[in-house]
Amino acid sequence: MDRPPSDIEALIELMARLPGLGPRSARRAVLRMIKKRGQLLQPLSEAMVKVAATARECVNCGNVGTSELCAICADPRRETGEICVVEDVADLWAMERSQVFKGRYHVLGGTLSALDAVGPDELRIPRLVDRAKTEEAREVILALNATIDGQTTAHYIAGELEALGVRVTSLAQGVPIGGELDYLDDGTITAALNARKSL
Amino acid sequence: MDRPPSDIEALIELMARLPGLGPRSARRAVLRMIKKRGQLLQPLSEAMVKVAATARECVNCGNVGTSELCAICADPRRETGEICVVEDVADLWAMERSQVFKGRYHVLGGTLSALDAVGPDELRIPRLVDRAKTEEAREVILALNATIDGQTTAHYIAGELEALGVRVTSLAQGVPIGGELDYLDDGTITAALNARKSL
Ligand SMILES: [Zn+2]
Ligand SMILES: [Zn+2]
Repeated sequence: MDRPPSDIEALIELMARLPGLGPRSARRAVLRMIKKRGQLLQPLSEAMVKVAATARECVNCGNVGTSELCAICADPRRETGEICVVEDVADLWAMERSQVFKGRYHVLGGTLSALDAVGPDELRIPRLVDRAKTEEAREVILALNATIDGQTTAHYIAGELEALGVRVTSLAQGVPIGGELDYLDDGTITAALNARKSL
Repeated sequence: MDRPPSDIEALIELMARLPGLGPRSARRAVLRMIKKRGQLLQPLSEAMVKVAATARECVNCGNVGTSELCAICADPRRETGEICVVEDVADLWAMERSQVFKGRYHVLGGTLSALDAVGPDELRIPRLVDRAKTEEAREVILALNATIDGQTTAHYIAGELEALGVRVTSLAQGVPIGGELDYLDDGTITAALNARKSL
């Protein structure tokens, strides 16, 4: 059996470690890169070198930026006394795309998980409690995923912040805009019914 | 709205152009790379630089290799008088993994497509006809996808090679090993029934 050249196999193996890609899609991706050397392969490797040199974690909130403080933490207009807690940076970007939240974030870097032995110290929760004090936060909004681990984490954080007299809220659960009931799971429908509002 | 740093946005945009990745999975992939800078981001950029420097298309068959002739075309043991025609290099690799074919390949680089205006000259078909003559091929095996475009291409190639007195065959169509009838489309079942064999 002839195998792909070893440099190509090494690249396929690395690509297959990315989330959302398996061995088959990694092979297809690498072949596309080779076909589009000038438009894809070279720009990708250059973009990676740049990101490796410039990207860093914000020391305050865990967001990705290019300085010690991310653009949001460095922006005085976002010092609103509201901190939105998210699981990871992708969730922060999703919140920012909605353009509705004007405060600052706190990126946990995961959720508490008994199974994976993830405790509060692995999650920047102590740092969140510090921030709630030093930034004199009025409200901490928990924008965590509606999973069991996400909800366990939310309850744990609410308990930690209660003593400080900070208001702790969480995103409403319900039917997504444009969502069809028939495609929703029972838990979502139950949550939406329990949180029903008068028109 | 705060946007991701521009270097990161540029990398996400490039990643999203790879087959199998959309904007969301590209964002997740880039965040994973940043988290695993030493294990993923730096090795990936280095692997891409290497592949960009070494990978080249075989002048004989269109396979990917590191010299003018790919490893298969350069191997005298594979001069068996059989040429297996595939749509792309991923299909060649799939054939090689099955370890059953001992001859050489010809990579078309696509299929004929009226819709996308892909004609024989875009597909290395003239080069295949040349090879069938100069390599005195006894058999050309068409291992093309069982799509309409794949089958159109197969018939066109068969017509071109007929005049040379080369035997042209194609992979059998039927039920895949382990395939459950209930999950197969009607066309596959029809093909399998028409090609039924006595036990
Ligand atoms: Zn920050
Ligand atoms: Zn070759």
